[in-house]
Amino acid sequence: MVEVAIIGAPGYAGVELTRLVLGHPELRLVAATSHSEAGARITDVYPALTGMTDLRYEVPGIERIAATATVAFLAVPHSAALDLAPGLLAAGMTVIDASADYRLKDPEVYERWYGVPHTSPELLPDAVYGLPEIDRSALPGARLVACPGCYPTATLLAAAPALEAGIVGDARIFVDAKSGVAGAGRSASPTTHFATVNEATAAYKVCVHRHTPEIEQGLSLVAGRRVRAVFAPHLVPMTRGLLSTVYLDLATEITLSEAVDIYQARYAGEPFITICAPGYMPSTAHVRGTNRAHIGLAVDPAGALVVSCAIDNLVKGTAGQAIQCANLVLGFDETAGLIHPVPVV
Amino acid sequence: MVEVAIIGAPGYAGVELTRLVLGHPELRLVAATSHSEAGARITDVYPALTGMTDLRYEVPGIERIAATATVAFLAVPHSAALDLAPGLLAAGMTVIDASADYRLKDPEVYERWYGVPHTSPELLPDAVYGLPEIDRSALPGARLVACPGCYPTATLLAAAPALEAGIVGDARIFVDAKSGVAGAGRSASPTTHFATVNEATAAYKVCVHRHTPEIEQGLSLVAGRRVRAVFAPHLVPMTRGLLSTVYLDLATEITLSEAVDIYQARYAGEPFITICAPGYMPSTAHVRGTNRAHIGLAVDPAGALVVSCAIDNLVKGTAGQAIQCANLVLGFDETAGLIHPVPVV
Amino acid sequence: MVEVAIIGAPGYAGVELTRLVLGHPELRLVAATSHSEAGARITDVYPALTGMTDLRYEVPGIERIAATATVAFLAVPHSAALDLAPGLLAAGMTVIDASADYRLKDPEVYERWYGVPHTSPELLPDAVYGLPEIDRSALPGARLVACPGCYPTATLLAAAPALEAGIVGDARIFVDAKSGVAGAGRSASPTTHFATVNEATAAYKVCVHRHTPEIEQGLSLVAGRRVRAVFAPHLVPMTRGLLSTVYLDLATEITLSEAVDIYQARYAGEPFITICAPGYMPSTAHVRGTNRAHIGLAVDPAGALVVSCAIDNLVKGTAGQAIQCANLVLGFDETAGLIHPVPVV
Amino acid sequence: MVEVAIIGAPGYAGVELTRLVLGHPELRLVAATSHSEAGARITDVYPALTGMTDLRYEVPGIERIAATATVAFLAVPHSAALDLAPGLLAAGMTVIDASADYRLKDPEVYERWYGVPHTSPELLPDAVYGLPEIDRSALPGARLVACPGCYPTATLLAAAPALEAGIVGDARIFVDAKSGVAGAGRSASPTTHFATVNEATAAYKVCVHRHTPEIEQGLSLVAGRRVRAVFAPHLVPMTRGLLSTVYLDLATEITLSEAVDIYQARYAGEPFITICAPGYMPSTAHVRGTNRAHIGLAVDPAGALVVSCAIDNLVKGTAGQAIQCANLVLGFDETAGLIHPVPVV
Repeated sequence: MVEVAIIGAPGYAGVELTRLVLGHPELRLVAATSHSEAGARITDVYPALTGMTDLRYEVPGIERIAATATVAFLAVPHSAALDLAPGLLAAGMTVIDASADYRLKDPEVYERWYGVPHTSPELLPDAVYGLPEIDRSALPGARLVACPGCYPTATLLAAAPALEAGIVGDARIFVDAKSGVAGAGRSASPTTHFATVNEATAAYKVCVHRHTPEIEQGLSLVAGRRVRAVFAPHLVPMTRGLLSTVYLDLATEITLSEAVDIYQARYAGEPFITICAPGYMPSTAHVRGTNRAHIGLAVDPAGALVVSCAIDNLVKGTAGQAIQCANLVLGFDETAGLIHPVPVV
Repeated sequence: MVEVAIIGAPGYAGVELTRLVLGHPELRLVAATSHSEAGARITDVYPALTGMTDLRYEVPGIERIAATATVAFLAVPHSAALDLAPGLLAAGMTVIDASADYRLKDPEVYERWYGVPHTSPELLPDAVYGLPEIDRSALPGARLVACPGCYPTATLLAAAPALEAGIVGDARIFVDAKSGVAGAGRSASPTTHFATVNEATAAYKVCVHRHTPEIEQGLSLVAGRRVRAVFAPHLVPMTRGLLSTVYLDLATEITLSEAVDIYQARYAGEPFITICAPGYMPSTAHVRGTNRAHIGLAVDPAGALVVSCAIDNLVKGTAGQAIQCANLVLGFDETAGLIHPVPVV
Repeated sequence: MVEVAIIGAPGYAGVELTRLVLGHPELRLVAATSHSEAGARITDVYPALTGMTDLRYEVPGIERIAATATVAFLAVPHSAALDLAPGLLAAGMTVIDASADYRLKDPEVYERWYGVPHTSPELLPDAVYGLPEIDRSALPGARLVACPGCYPTATLLAAAPALEAGIVGDARIFVDAKSGVAGAGRSASPTTHFATVNEATAAYKVCVHRHTPEIEQGLSLVAGRRVRAVFAPHLVPMTRGLLSTVYLDLATEITLSEAVDIYQARYAGEPFITICAPGYMPSTAHVRGTNRAHIGLAVDPAGALVVSCAIDNLVKGTAGQAIQCANLVLGFDETAGLIHPVPVV
Repeated sequence: MVEVAIIGAPGYAGVELTRLVLGHPELRLVAATSHSEAGARITDVYPALTGMTDLRYEVPGIERIAATATVAFLAVPHSAALDLAPGLLAAGMTVIDASADYRLKDPEVYERWYGVPHTSPELLPDAVYGLPEIDRSALPGARLVACPGCYPTATLLAAAPALEAGIVGDARIFVDAKSGVAGAGRSASPTTHFATVNEATAAYKVCVHRHTPEIEQGLSLVAGRRVRAVFAPHLVPMTRGLLSTVYLDLATEITLSEAVDIYQARYAGEPFITICAPGYMPSTAHVRGTNRAHIGLAVDPAGALVVSCAIDNLVKGTAGQAIQCANLVLGFDETAGLIHPVPVV
């Protein structure tokens, strides 16, 4: 058993990590930190975890954490990981960071989009971008993993096979994503009020969302050239789930079944990826609570490929992917703790 | 007062027409027809209309309808209007058709997409496509109005000003639309079951939805050239509302504020259209229950224009637009019966 | 036209009053006050009211309000009305108070349940409890109307006819009520977060909710004796709507159809009340957006009467009832501004 | 490993059994039957189970089932189990029946409430009512288990400790229950349409619901006297979850903390029951996807006890309880296959 700590544990990413660690055969939760909830039992804040843990939230302290745990999961807002990761690494811990702080390879891009200076750029070269289906090989033994954002995860999984196969034209890629409101975090605000979210669908931060440079970085890496993305995130009235529908110009004529074959081949053997049969499209309901990604395709006679990828934004989009990365870093079975019979209705 | 009949009255389009006609200062509902609900009071089927009408649904009969009403609203499935419109017109009635049967100018296109022969193609030349904001001038005095589909309404309103202004490149247009489930009609099916829709977002009929040729016909007309559309409709977990987000290649460099100006100018004086200030995007919640369309824009530095248009699919997308058309046909104030203080939360 | 001001206008009760006043044929909105939103257009905060008003929220000031308006609607939290009503009345205005401050006739009961001293008990004797279906006669010409809470409205409408008819035993009455989350107001909090409310039903403040003494006061008045109520409010995952199901011991044997007859007779001629036919029960969906109350009954062979009353908590439960009271106070048609064809699906 | 078959597998109870059996360490799913879906892969019908099974639905046949499995779970509508259980038992199988057919000890009561003759009353004496927290001792080795209905489960768990402790008066018990729509099953109908359920709360079948005699049978058994229940089920707009709020007259004065102590003591050691601390009430969200029951209490000064019990109607209310019973029948750990880290947000 490997001892782990979750930093920023009562947020939605944190509690999702909590439930997954509690059900993991090789990990043992020894600390869950929080400033605001320090002293409270986890089950006081989340009665749904009743019977699974007696742990209390504690004020975070690097020494105390490093004394009891060897792996730290960071479920904190951007810029907060900058304050934590260097110390945790220096104390010998492995850091699986679910925040945005070590995802962008260029610190200037980070500073432009996040509006804060990057205070540990020296860690960026060795930080591993934790999307195993794109580059699994870098993860074993990594000390610092930067887990992808939820939008980049679904978008890269949707676009990568087509870009790698060279069937996509040079034009910009359009990304229309729809997210459940849990992606916005646990903080109460007018935008997360039930009466605001219910019966409401709207785009937000179109062309200016912070996941844009991360999407472009990832797309460019798999394409081997600079790829531009026009990114329009939307909020839809559901708690969990994220669907990214990607619009690609085809550089070559291709049938739907050939396109499906390319995707099937690319993701053959992937434990968490399913390519829908021609004519079927994935629903966020099909992956709810799981670490899976379901991908469906359509080919338009006007010469375009449409790819839709459904994930659970709190699992494959955040906490599940962090566990998947930890499994690979630590040498466990990649699916350990991630195969559960969750409710399907 | 003008006497009107609603054919196919207990469906969602029909009941929305019913509530709007009941609140209209110049229209009087004299008949509401239905095979399945014949004999029942409207308020038995829809208790929410209690206190507003004592009418009962009756079996449809062209003679009986033409004897009491001068305007017929058709809220029937496609192909059913083919059976009704010729007789109603021959009996001297004005027909406002909310079905798809007279929207496509080319009967071969209709037959290819709807899979049934068009049995009254001779009516197509004089059928007026009822989207007043695109072509209001054809409506006064029209005998047969083909009201647009919900997806084409939002999409054409979103794309028309940019196409007309000549700022859009020649590439295909990508249309990503999100609809509430009431758009699928009142029939019970596994796809409309609460447990299926709740917490589920998915694309469906991508590149093969029947509104595609109608969207392309409308876009081509305003652009003055053949325009191709890649159309991906999505179902989101809400009852009402439709958001169409349209992705256009810019042929020319333009700022967001210039783009907003173009849209403001194009729709100046339109009673039902609002262009959001730069930085704001419309929500389906902002138009719920109304005949309004709210439109927001974003410009991407990679040379693309993103336009998002929110409507209520049962009002501006169906029944409200039918009333708006009837107002113009009959010479009433265009907004008559369409300005109500509906709930805003 | 009567000029009106809405105090506390951007809250959910306030915006509901705003939309109803804007649609009212005899009322003209001249001021909408707010500390937090002062300076903003109403339509900036509520885009759904676009096209209906250009008014901006202003800081409340009694002199300024009294100079332009003759009626003030108070949509403020409890205790805030204590600060406003005396001054507005002294300035000659009519006050329609949607808060709790003048509902309880005994200031000691108020202080015990609300935890603050009642600073204007001298106004209580002349404050009229504004539930027209229970006592319409006191409203014409009233200067200060205390509009009932949402739970008391539905509960009293459900229980009054049986108590008045003398068919109820002496035992306590059990009241199980279910409310949509808009009843909790517009403030963002963990309990109103979409992810908290969605897929969650729970009781809260059982036996200690502040509407309990108001319910008991109302029940006792109609029964002519001290009536105790055991009150359990619940939160259900919807925005609007309130259903109060009331459990009464029968003092006498009675059939369902006799019970329905008693209710039909009691509410004969009431413009906003419908008694469901035997075997039918009301849904909050049937009254959504309206000022109506639908009431259904069941008789248990074990000697009990179950009565379920559905209202829209923001309309008949708050703002609509305030308008209904204002109509009676001012001598307008009781239904003026309250009969609109709102969406029924 | 014990081989099991699920009869009626694609319904909501059936698919919930499917996911639980697939995650069970001691059970192996060898057959899943269905008339309507025969031939389809389970994952075609429920893509959310992708990766967990390759099984296809097959037409049910007693011989074929008995040849491969030793335990049969029946997830069929009432009266269908009457056709299956005798044959399965005769073939040597153990039958865990989630239908209503063997719950009522008196076949005349069954026939009166269900409207069909009971064709195997000889099995009733040995059928064990499968609510382990009420009578665990009868389960080991049982051949036929009649799993309780969802409403009786939550209601009996809520009321039993008070009745057993003798603190309840002789009056009838009022039961107000709220259920998510998955309890109505997978069949599409107007009452399960998203647009019908969304934003709607209503009572249904008040005093005439078929779970009434089952509730009274269970209450009477624990009380040792004839107990009458007035039962009002409600539908609320959520997929899963059931909350039963029970109103009991107190025969004796008691404090809230004494009442909580009685419940804590009664359920001490129960692996699936949690009693909320005084002042807290359970939410269906706290037990979503789990086999747990959370119970909260309130004492009214007017001499009443209010108990609210939250369960997941598809787990503790149906499939989870069936697994719990199977564990006890077969001698496994009672919690085997029922402790999973399901999503908590």
